[in-house]
Amino acid sequence: MNFSSKLIEDAVNAFSTLPGIGKKSALRLVLHLMQQETEKTETFAEALVNMRKNIKTCQRCYNISDHHICNICSDPRRDKRVICVVESIRDIMAIEDTSQFRGQYHVLGGVINPIEGIGPGDLHIEPLLERIKAGGVEELIMAISPTIEGDTTIFYIAKQLRDLSVRISTIARGVAFGGELEYTDELTLGRSIVARVPYRTQGE
Amino acid sequence: MNFSSKLIEDAVNAFSTLPGIGKKSALRLVLHLMQQETEKTETFAEALVNMRKNIKTCQRCYNISDHHICNICSDPRRDKRVICVVESIRDIMAIEDTSQFRGQYHVLGGVINPIEGIGPGDLHIEPLLERIKAGGVEELIMAISPTIEGDTTIFYIAKQLRDLSVRISTIARGVAFGGELEYTDELTLGRSIVARVPYRTQGE
Repeated sequence: MNFSSKLIEDAVNAFSTLPGIGKKSALRLVLHLMQQETEKTETFAEALVNMRKNIKTCQRCYNISDHHICNICSDPRRDKRVICVVESIRDIMAIEDTSQFRGQYHVLGGVINPIEGIGPGDLHIEPLLERIKAGGVEELIMAISPTIEGDTTIFYIAKQLRDLSVRISTIARGVAFGGELEYTDELTLGRSIVARVPYRTQGE
Repeated sequence: MNFSSKLIEDAVNAFSTLPGIGKKSALRLVLHLMQQETEKTETFAEALVNMRKNIKTCQRCYNISDHHICNICSDPRRDKRVICVVESIRDIMAIEDTSQFRGQYHVLGGVINPIEGIGPGDLHIEPLLERIKAGGVEELIMAISPTIEGDTTIFYIAKQLRDLSVRISTIARGVAFGGELEYTDELTLGRSIVARVPYRTQGE
């Protein structure tokens, strides 16, 4: 595409680095900004830089946070006895939107995937075990996407906790097999938390 | 959506103000930026602010420009005797991509549309007439979207130029009637410029 302007070209290229935005969409966004006040672009840019510079990871649950401990971990009304284990922060947002869960979370940062070279050491499994060993946790709800990798991860964690008196449950399989947790509708996701089932390893 | 972070919420809202980007897409973009180096977000933001602050409108043809006179107007290899009249800067980019036109441009900034309250005075028609009256222009190519409003605009300009010895042509109607110029493929658009036809008002 011929922009006849280095400034436009730079801005279009900047937008094109974002996922799902091609050159034509990027140009549309740039032209939109051009039609707005300069101040709007500045506010927009500032919100992004401010977010990127100041965003933190919660030292307890690995959720994103404005502080060292996130809003959920520091909320005294949340039940500390139940931890919902999720793959990513997007899953926390999806579950929070259902308003069906009042416990705390733990973000693994992915699932065990030997093909992609992701082992237990690459995930936040050790800090989860430490949280449980510190005491007070009665139940772990595994809200992991129902895939082979997800099942492997649940199996691995359950095995590590075999000697500890913590109940492990998985969210009800209302979530379609092979589906992505974050795209599940609120009703299905909410119900699958309420109707969670005790986790059993094979052979038990 | 529940973000549990003011910083994320602000960034998501910032992206959501852009056309075609909803809350879910905005969140995906924000999480993408979070996974990148802080520097990348800063470069991104800088490109946008820099563009918005320094972008100019060409004082001759109303194209976007890094300077007071745009690259096309100041290029001595471009034929000053032919002016291609377009609605928007996006049309210039589309025509430049065809490499079929070596003249200059004039951006109207829209078409006459009485229903939306856009009259000839709201467009850059007067500066176009002045460019032609200044002499040296032999042909006007009307590359206006083939809609009723576009036809009205061509008719209006042609009427204003009745006493001046300038040829007026319209791009060949290879462009589908009612279609948008900027989404036409390069081949069709390029051919429609080469096979342009003389403009005649009804009754002539």
